[in-house]
Amino acid sequence: MITPLFSPHAIGHVKSPYKQTAEIPKGLGAKHDAEGVLEILPEFVPGLADIEGFSHLSVIWVFDKSTDFDLIARPPSDDGRPHGVFATRSPRRPNPIGLTIVELLGRDGSKLRVRGVDMLDGTPVLDIKPYLSSVTEHALRRGWLAEAEARRGS
Amino acid sequence: MITPLFSPHAIGHVKSPYKQTAEIPKGLGAKHDAEGVLEILPEFVPGLADIEGFSHLSVIWVFDKSTDFDLIARPPSDDGRPHGVFATRSPRRPNPIGLTIVELLGRDGSKLRVRGVDMLDGTPVLDIKPYLSSVTEHALRRGWLAEAEARRGS
Repeated sequence: MITPLFSPHAIGHVKSPYKQTAEIPKGLGAKHDAEGVLEILPEFVPGLADIEGFSHLSVIWVFDKSTDFDLIARPPSDDGRPHGVFATRSPRRPNPIGLTIVELLGRDGSKLRVRGVDMLDGTPVLDIKPYLSSVTEHALRRGWLAEAEARRGS
Repeated sequence: MITPLFSPHAIGHVKSPYKQTAEIPKGLGAKHDAEGVLEILPEFVPGLADIEGFSHLSVIWVFDKSTDFDLIARPPSDDGRPHGVFATRSPRRPNPIGLTIVELLGRDGSKLRVRGVDMLDGTPVLDIKPYLSSVTEHALRRGWLAEAEARRGS
């Protein structure tokens, strides 16, 4: 056993409409318009100062129901075709870390109301950062996902 | 001591031109055009299959030189004005996790050549995901950073 790089702990939890994995729109290209709340633990609330000024946040969280990983994933959005796990958003990753960009709708003390959640209710949040990147649409290539969408005519 | 949520371990390391923190362009709005390499450990290389199709990647990594956190950060890009740590990219975070969007220039087996590194040479990488988000420029608000830029006339 290698010494872990650090000891991850929750700074808060996601309040989400999704209580079961099956309810979450699946796949790399799935649309996520669901509203939810990031409930930050009292001891970390001072770290939210000035967050209201940002329209979008990167939320880093834990796939806490995931128990193992596969290097090859078979995403539902590509009808189960195999792709390397790092080319997918599969929960079965070497480090079970999730990343979601959400829109910040408002803040009420320790609660951030957000749009775009794709996490299960109760998911532990590790970090929140301002989202700034603006890779322009024409500069973006989306690999196997674009092919899968073209195949479906979507 | 609370039980850690999982045991983070490196899937690879960053080869970067930055050997010292002082060399890295600082602040939330800093431009990062530096080229570097993500060297993936042999046992995780199968997880890279099909990654070449994506132009941009989200890289999740560890601030492995960071030993503690502050809930209030004073970013150099805002002349040391105080902001909550979750509204900044300060390395002194409750979970010392970094996130960088890079452009994938090419792949040579276990090595991903990328543009946009802002990590120190040797930084441990936890995860790589395809970057897909395209929040349009007009929908994006950038909080205190936009104010700091306006103040500087940049």
